[in-house]
Amino acid sequence: MSNRVTDEMDIVSVSSSRRNSESLPHVHKVGIPPKQNLLKEIAGTVKETFFADDPLRHFKDQPRSRKFVLGFQAVFPIFEWGRHYSLSKFKGDLIAGLTIASLCIPQDIGYAKLANLPPQYGLYSSFVPPLIYAFMGSSRDIAIGPVAVVSLLLGSLIQNEIDPTKNPAEYLRLTFTATFFAGITQVTLGFFRLGFLIDFLSHAAIVGFMGGAAVTIALQQLKGLLGIKKFTKKTDIISVMHSVFKAAHHGWNWQTILIGMSFLAFLLVAKYIAKKKKKLFWVPAIAPLISVILSTFFVYITRADKHGVQIVKHIRRGINPASVDQIFFSGEYLAKGFRIGVLAGMIALTEAVAIGRTFASMKDYQLDGNKEMVALGTMNIVGSMTSCYVATGSFSRSAVNYMSGCHTAVSNIVMSGVVLLTLELITPLFKYTPNAILASIIISAVISLIDIEAAILIWKIDKFDFVACMGAFFGVVFSSVEIGLLIAVSISFAKILLQVTRPRTAILGKLPRTTVYRNILQYPDAAKVPGILIVRVDSAIYFSNSNYIKERILRWLVDEAERLKENSQPRIQFLIIEMSPVTDIDTSGIHAMEELLRSLDKRDIKLVLANPGPVVVDKLHASKFHEMIGEDRIFLTVEDAVRTCAPKMDLEP
Amino acid sequence: MSNRVTDEMDIVSVSSSRRNSESLPHVHKVGIPPKQNLLKEIAGTVKETFFADDPLRHFKDQPRSRKFVLGFQAVFPIFEWGRHYSLSKFKGDLIAGLTIASLCIPQDIGYAKLANLPPQYGLYSSFVPPLIYAFMGSSRDIAIGPVAVVSLLLGSLIQNEIDPTKNPAEYLRLTFTATFFAGITQVTLGFFRLGFLIDFLSHAAIVGFMGGAAVTIALQQLKGLLGIKKFTKKTDIISVMHSVFKAAHHGWNWQTILIGMSFLAFLLVAKYIAKKKKKLFWVPAIAPLISVILSTFFVYITRADKHGVQIVKHIRRGINPASVDQIFFSGEYLAKGFRIGVLAGMIALTEAVAIGRTFASMKDYQLDGNKEMVALGTMNIVGSMTSCYVATGSFSRSAVNYMSGCHTAVSNIVMSGVVLLTLELITPLFKYTPNAILASIIISAVISLIDIEAAILIWKIDKFDFVACMGAFFGVVFSSVEIGLLIAVSISFAKILLQVTRPRTAILGKLPRTTVYRNILQYPDAAKVPGILIVRVDSAIYFSNSNYIKERILRWLVDEAERLKENSQPRIQFLIIEMSPVTDIDTSGIHAMEELLRSLDKRDIKLVLANPGPVVVDKLHASKFHEMIGEDRIFLTVEDAVRTCAPKMDLEP
Repeated sequence: MSNRVTDEMDIVSVSSSRRNSESLPHVHKVGIPPKQNLLKEIAGTVKETFFADDPLRHFKDQPRSRKFVLGFQAVFPIFEWGRHYSLSKFKGDLIAGLTIASLCIPQDIGYAKLANLPPQYGLYSSFVPPLIYAFMGSSRDIAIGPVAVVSLLLGSLIQNEIDPTKNPAEYLRLTFTATFFAGITQVTLGFFRLGFLIDFLSHAAIVGFMGGAAVTIALQQLKGLLGIKKFTKKTDIISVMHSVFKAAHHGWNWQTILIGMSFLAFLLVAKYIAKKKKKLFWVPAIAPLISVILSTFFVYITRADKHGVQIVKHIRRGINPASVDQIFFSGEYLAKGFRIGVLAGMIALTEAVAIGRTFASMKDYQLDGNKEMVALGTMNIVGSMTSCYVATGSFSRSAVNYMSGCHTAVSNIVMSGVVLLTLELITPLFKYTPNAILASIIISAVISLIDIEAAILIWKIDKFDFVACMGAFFGVVFSSVEIGLLIAVSISFAKILLQVTRPRTAILGKLPRTTVYRNILQYPDAAKVPGILIVRVDSAIYFSNSNYIKERILRWLVDEAERLKENSQPRIQFLIIEMSPVTDIDTSGIHAMEELLRSLDKRDIKLVLANPGPVVVDKLHASKFHEMIGEDRIFLTVEDAVRTCAPKMDLEP
Repeated sequence: MSNRVTDEMDIVSVSSSRRNSESLPHVHKVGIPPKQNLLKEIAGTVKETFFADDPLRHFKDQPRSRKFVLGFQAVFPIFEWGRHYSLSKFKGDLIAGLTIASLCIPQDIGYAKLANLPPQYGLYSSFVPPLIYAFMGSSRDIAIGPVAVVSLLLGSLIQNEIDPTKNPAEYLRLTFTATFFAGITQVTLGFFRLGFLIDFLSHAAIVGFMGGAAVTIALQQLKGLLGIKKFTKKTDIISVMHSVFKAAHHGWNWQTILIGMSFLAFLLVAKYIAKKKKKLFWVPAIAPLISVILSTFFVYITRADKHGVQIVKHIRRGINPASVDQIFFSGEYLAKGFRIGVLAGMIALTEAVAIGRTFASMKDYQLDGNKEMVALGTMNIVGSMTSCYVATGSFSRSAVNYMSGCHTAVSNIVMSGVVLLTLELITPLFKYTPNAILASIIISAVISLIDIEAAILIWKIDKFDFVACMGAFFGVVFSSVEIGLLIAVSISFAKILLQVTRPRTAILGKLPRTTVYRNILQYPDAAKVPGILIVRVDSAIYFSNSNYIKERILRWLVDEAERLKENSQPRIQFLIIEMSPVTDIDTSGIHAMEELLRSLDKRDIKLVLANPGPVVVDKLHASKFHEMIGEDRIFLTVEDAVRTCAPKMDLEP
């Protein structure tokens, strides 16, 4: 199939070998990049690290007044997109906003319970934060509010410090403190452009963590679903199941189970319908509200609460009270609030940024991660002063928002308005809502966080990622949210360390009838060149791997020498290192190269470099290494190097 | 100069473009590596990570009895090299051993003071550990014993826990405990083949750390050199200088200063002589012992100790007493000893391994780092039971050992023998040795740890390394040894993280009259291909950088599109990603590629891959990504890709 091209290459390689004898050193030279100013170099690195997305590019060459307007619009994007806002867009946003509102109200009440807070705090957190986000955020699809995982994390962390039943006021204060610092963390990360730090939680780790959190949350709902009164405070599966079975004899309430299970079935069927028919996406979106209405009505009529069915009882009417005076700015809880806040803030960010990126890529618009963090952080800081706990982007509601046809963050404003009306007018109606319904709503919501398909794909693609995924999953399920997180981050870091300490190397061979050299393991028909060993190093040479690389290359040499001896073939006389993938080298790397050179000299093998990149060339010059090996032993391509070395060899074995 | 070869290439590229129209898809195919068994794959990774040096290769295909002998020799290399030992080798070892013994005895006494221990403990540590090492170690040049940096580290860390003047017995016990755990740490790292962990202290960090420690140690010697009685316990330069100047008026002793300074001058001159004439290397090696003898004699005659010249006073006679019962195996000091031991053990390892590697590379023999660690660890464990504190390889004495012509570790046995005789016979003679002499010996020993040339070279080669170097240096000098170490390790890690989060990317252009594509910044004459953007990604695509890479590529596209628009040139229709340096991709990376593909589809740009490696090809298949972009859009080389894409383009702007 590839005959013609390779034939043609054949001609070249024949003709080139014919010419070799006449014109040896006439090969293309390796480019030495123009010397850079030191300050410029540092500025370049800093820019690429922290301002990779060049956030100020629009400000260039603009008059000062325009710069001010641009700056204002950068902080409040609503004033940019708002100018092109139209009625047709509002139609989409209105419908989407109403849909997510109907979904968020029952979820909010449930999530507040997960965070051990009175139900109204969930609603509060769906009122103020979405408003702030709508002004400052740049994602068009994200739906802001409390989410299951963060609620669980916050609840379990704060509960370790203060008992929510014995000391609810202090508990609430610590929650606001944590929320405040979660916001501060987010703003700080965004402002100092450290957003890339959240990239250290890999996709695989997130899949595992989310799955584990979903299982944990679902297990927690057994309390509400089975009507158990005495329930463990731990979140690991063993304690929870122990609690459940201990209560089996006289702790379960059959009326509760009946209500809970039937509505759970209803919710799951609704989900199933939407999965089968994408057009019916609104069915599971409004199913929770319908469940709440029906079950509340049912309990009110039958007075099932007198038969042991637990109900919400009381939700405070009215909008968010101020809470700025409740935040701990001193005392022992300051440090605790800070620690919990940092953790919750990071997790909330991870979730929000993942959602933002997904939908931005689906609609193909750019999202400035760092600006998003500032928006999310500001919204949580303001939230902490208005009785909200940590809010972020919700997976399930954002998906519904997207599918309902939202165009802009106005859908969040609409949702916020609906929540406002709810708080002002209809909270008393929730009195008879059975807790079991909230439990079923949470279960049906978190179930979609368990992404088995993703886990299978991860297994197929990368076994190490799968270990991280399972580590996070089992860590969360069998121990706690923090442990799961710790495991996930540790495994992710281990992977990075492995990558930088044990980079790959490959022996290259020449593809028949081409001038192309490739890994002989990948291309079995690639042939080694007699007397020459060609090694490709697949990583920057840094202190963390310089010794390994040196020793690995020497080992390739020894292995090859043994093999050649056995077959009485000519011994290795040149070692060509293909440097294309070596993007950088540091002082330890230069040292290792010098040691390698010394070892090779002792064995009478000549070191040859092929295609070092700009940075490497620069450093070889700075360290005078190019003089040690000789300028004429650095080539543009492996082919050039081989063509120059081959005729110089003495091919007797 | 490179005319002929490039002319010839020109012919190819012309002929190939001529042929393009007839035979387009006939290009070499990308190799798909043979499917590997999962277990095999994992075993391969584990082997490469932990057994990169294949320590069991000699054991292959050997009868069982031979295996046993080999195993025994592997643990005790002396039984391997001892069989070829000869008288001529012993001559070299004897001279080297005597030379390092004369150097080590005064140093040992001084270093023991640095660790706040009575002087004999320095000698003890030069008796037992070198013996053990001689049997188990595989370096031929290293000289074992107490060293300045570890003594300082141990002294300052243990002093934080127990006051050595108020509670010398407990202090000593904690020292043995720390030594024991230092040994355990070293054996563990070696046994579990985690030796690569010490590679995380980069060369630059070590240079800075050693320099800082040397300055700190020299400053500490001002106490002895100036005869100051009240001296700070802190090691930072500010506290020390404060102490020195506070004592200036009536705390300095002019007799001490006179003795100390004149011998310091003598020692430095001796060093200078050796530097000028390599043959006289033995002058600075025996100068310390001569100084000790002369000054002791001088003080004894003049009874200068009655005029405020501090003297050693008492060194206990006799060899090491057993100390196994003194180690804390329980109680609060167990944990403290453990922590200090781990730290001191790691630092000691770093020094020993660096020395071992340097000399191994100079004499071209292989050193198994992990086996070395086991040897060093065992020697410290045994040492901790025989009244020694942490011993390791000394830079200065190993260099003297090497230059005196040592052949094997027998020189350590000779030295050990001399120390034994010293302990048994002549310790009382040290009674009148002035402390000032010990101070000058230590100063002249540590001064060579300050490697300004290395620092300058680091500055020239890698600015980031220089920051790490200076961070470690100033951290040690202005704060403490631990802080300096922490700074060095943190900066080293930051560098690794930077590398994995912000990999380089480059735009490639075709070198004129070749089929080679190179970075247009390095090769200014490389020309972009109209309508095609060729980007090379210089790193594995992992979760830590997948988003950055995706966004960076999109930004290259946007920049290029703007530039083309301005010059009304044809728009980009193909994006070729040169994947040669991409050694691996994980699930996050695959996701990023999918998002990139989606974004490109929206812009009507086709994604093309060139030369993905074996692992990447494997994972593209596992994730079905190759089907998403189309198998026919993956090429062996950039040239193949360009040749296939170019004719398909519509080149109207």
